Amino acid sequence: MDDNLAAEQQAGAGRRARGDRGGATARRAARSGGGPGIQQSFVDRKIKVYEVLDEEGLALIEANADLILEEIGIEFRDDAEALAMWREAGADVRGERVHFPKGLCRSLLKSAPPVFTQHARNPARSVQIGGNATVFAPVYGPPFVRDLEGNRRYATIEDFRNFVKLAYMAPSLHHSGGTVCEPVDVPVNKRHLDMVHAHMTLSDKPFMGSVTAPERAQDTVDMAKILFGEKFVEDNTVVINLINANSPMVFDETMLGAAKVYARNNQATIITPFILAGAMSPVTVAGTLTQVLAEVLAGAAFTQLVRPGAPVLFGTFASSISMQSGAPTFGTPEPTLVSYGAGQLARRLGLPFRTGGSLCASKVPDAQAAYESANTLNSTMLAGTNFVLHSAGWLEGGLASCYEKFMMDIDQLGMQQKLAQGVDLSENGQALDAIREVGPGSHYLGCSHTQANFQTAFYRSSIADNNSYEQWLAEGEKRAENRANELARRWLESYEAPALDEGIADGLKDFIARKKESMPDAFT
Amino acid sequence: MDDNLAAEQQAGAGRRARGDRGGATARRAARSGGGPGIQQSFVDRKIKVYEVLDEEGLALIEANADLILEEIGIEFRDDAEALAMWREAGADVRGERVHFPKGLCRSLLKSAPPVFTQHARNPARSVQIGGNATVFAPVYGPPFVRDLEGNRRYATIEDFRNFVKLAYMAPSLHHSGGTVCEPVDVPVNKRHLDMVHAHMTLSDKPFMGSVTAPERAQDTVDMAKILFGEKFVEDNTVVINLINANSPMVFDETMLGAAKVYARNNQATIITPFILAGAMSPVTVAGTLTQVLAEVLAGAAFTQLVRPGAPVLFGTFASSISMQSGAPTFGTPEPTLVSYGAGQLARRLGLPFRTGGSLCASKVPDAQAAYESANTLNSTMLAGTNFVLHSAGWLEGGLASCYEKFMMDIDQLGMQQKLAQGVDLSENGQALDAIREVGPGSHYLGCSHTQANFQTAFYRSSIADNNSYEQWLAEGEKRAENRANELARRWLESYEAPALDEGIADGLKDFIARKKESMPDAFT
Repeated sequence: MDDNLAAEQQAGAGRRARGDRGGATARRAARSGGGPGIQQSFVDRKIKVYEVLDEEGLALIEANADLILEEIGIEFRDDAEALAMWREAGADVRGERVHFPKGLCRSLLKSAPPVFTQHARNPARSVQIGGNATVFAPVYGPPFVRDLEGNRRYATIEDFRNFVKLAYMAPSLHHSGGTVCEPVDVPVNKRHLDMVHAHMTLSDKPFMGSVTAPERAQDTVDMAKILFGEKFVEDNTVVINLINANSPMVFDETMLGAAKVYARNNQATIITPFILAGAMSPVTVAGTLTQVLAEVLAGAAFTQLVRPGAPVLFGTFASSISMQSGAPTFGTPEPTLVSYGAGQLARRLGLPFRTGGSLCASKVPDAQAAYESANTLNSTMLAGTNFVLHSAGWLEGGLASCYEKFMMDIDQLGMQQKLAQGVDLSENGQALDAIREVGPGSHYLGCSHTQANFQTAFYRSSIADNNSYEQWLAEGEKRAENRANELARRWLESYEAPALDEGIADGLKDFIARKKESMPDAFT
Repeated sequence: MDDNLAAEQQAGAGRRARGDRGGATARRAARSGGGPGIQQSFVDRKIKVYEVLDEEGLALIEANADLILEEIGIEFRDDAEALAMWREAGADVRGERVHFPKGLCRSLLKSAPPVFTQHARNPARSVQIGGNATVFAPVYGPPFVRDLEGNRRYATIEDFRNFVKLAYMAPSLHHSGGTVCEPVDVPVNKRHLDMVHAHMTLSDKPFMGSVTAPERAQDTVDMAKILFGEKFVEDNTVVINLINANSPMVFDETMLGAAKVYARNNQATIITPFILAGAMSPVTVAGTLTQVLAEVLAGAAFTQLVRPGAPVLFGTFASSISMQSGAPTFGTPEPTLVSYGAGQLARRLGLPFRTGGSLCASKVPDAQAAYESANTLNSTMLAGTNFVLHSAGWLEGGLASCYEKFMMDIDQLGMQQKLAQGVDLSENGQALDAIREVGPGSHYLGCSHTQANFQTAFYRSSIADNNSYEQWLAEGEKRAENRANELARRWLESYEAPALDEGIADGLKDFIARKKESMPDAFT
């Protein structure tokens, strides 16, 4: 944690005077079925990043991206204001196509912060975005759920609230996320109010805002002002928001509208080319990286046109398509290389980086789901990713949020959190006295060093069954998803909401009621 | 591939005049159900290794290991010859405990080759061990199998042969391995003959020898002389062998006996401390690395006492134990750190490195199995591992070889093989013309660059189902293990043995018959 953040959190704690109820709930969750891990504000990575490109490769891709920006250009569609801003900034605008003189985007991005704090209403849950920090946030966007009865069905607001509760209780998640599933039982024009309300009231972790229309983005900001206080929101970033490019090389009205609202209010945006390579980008890794960089440069620079200094992330969502069926594939080598490369490009640009998660194409939480998710998560972590969306619960190419997978994934996140602490080289870590005490041919089970360290020495999985085959048989031959199912049920039963000031709670309710009354009951 | 190896393979091809039947079988396998990947002699890694220790940490661990060697010492049990050799070499031998003057082991290891070739009877399948090469070999050691009917039972010689056949057909496996399962239906004193025979006749990939007694090691060498010719075996390494340390800090008579036979015959040994941290080593990563390094230094240096220049690997098998149950755990953060650190120590020592694989504790090929295996395999690969034992089929902490898991794992190995090729930065890889051709708002599905590259652009999984939920439903809601099961059956049905000279085949049969006749029918 940087000193700034620590100081701010202390100030925040004094101002809002709420205890760390999340910690207590996490401890309760741990008692009712094990781990995973210890709640941290975020992962403070002590291990190195992994790199797949050398200086020459990076410079080549950057030069090619500059070429795309100047020669081909990026379209900003149905947004006359955006085009006027670009013209004003010195770009060559032809129709809706913006051509960028070499260096313009990079020069604009100098005002974007490399590291910033996203505040949570519980100051102990505020997160650092950028630098050595990694923040895990849950799945985003699925219209379906795979529920605890094993049914695959449309998601509801109850599911939404359940995932917010589980994320609140999960010590390895630092963030409440955004659209943890699409509550399709709520009219589409009112949905965002209930979603934001759930994040604000059922959790005290930081969260994401609505991006599906500028007025919904504004509602998010207005609700944040009720929760955090108007002045606090003016001075601080309290919400982070997903702005997808419409790849290849297009930003559309909806996303631009939301981006403008958030940037104007000094709130964070994640500019993310959504890439299924072979469809939205070339079939090659270098070609995909080039296009991604060009799109991020244009989109992120745009936020700085709107408000210099507004926090903005270099995002990439990397997948390939099956060249047989056209379906997206996950956990394969090519997106892994894209993630590593994009992380390097983001660091050179000085922007916080978002990619990856626990992505998979499987329809059930089986071995395919786990191989693909683990491949993605391992590379996400080593790529030095700062903000990890979809880190828990993602199934079926993002079409379904899965309770069981959620519980499995948070266990894996706990492992990554521990891994990121690296090797302890202290005298205790070196353990020379233990080696002397035990000597050849004996064992370490009872030695004093083992006794002193065994509580924290090894990560303790909340899902894995490491018992003997015979014991596993006697306990009912449970598979990983059966154990995850039981754990999710126990957690949901033991959930307790974090305390919230009554005035704030009422203020949020009033705002939502007033807004809903003013809207037709439209489902489109 | 290094030039040496390429030249040797060509020479071998002339000498033995056998075609690449393995390639044809792999292509047949590919047609009968998909991938995974292309048969390579070995993975020629073009990506960097990942490191968790800096110079200071490495020097600290090396100094501590030297301290263990000198002050505590390593026991060489029940082997007067070994103790005499150490005394002769200048070590301080007290009883069975050998204390090594600082620098002795390192100095002895100067004669060990950093890179060598293990020859296969098909020269195209010979493997480079060391340098940028990674060789994938299947699971080693399980007394049980999880069969294609879903039963968990004792393994038989038929299972053994089946796994040798599958490994032969798997393009992502470069090696036939050793004890792919324990054929417990064959008497223990005769078992090694049937196992080595299966590797020699049912596959043309390189393989491992018996280490359970010095005379069985000698049988392996004698059979290799029938297969490769006496002179060829004298001049070349044709078998690689697993020599486990009895951690902490003990080498026993059995392993020393086998190590002496192989080293004297210029055959390769893998000196591997078998570590369940918390039991066989300290509970800390740095402590474990220190002890592992000391044990490998002593064991590997011993092979150089036996025969300077005999190929020897720095091995480590890293797992932790559950501090609740004492059971081994896999895919957790601590063994991952051990693997990365041990890889660094091995490279500094100039020895080829063995660790990892597709390890898991799960009793079934479910999500737990896959998460743990993927965590292990990803770090195994990035650790720069040269020889990967247990890379396919490992289940239940190594107690069971699993057909379904085998098929899943080889798919993952294919992905790693592709990943290791890194980013193609050629003009075709940069794909600027494709980006120009497609432009904003269109798609790449039909563009000429996609057409030209789609066959090889993306790794094609042989296990993953990437289809729509509806199609998956219509096709019977198969899980990954169901698809793996079908694939294993298809492969075993379509297996064809590689050709083998009749004289050699008869020679092997005669040798085994003669040996078996001379032995009692002992099952112990």
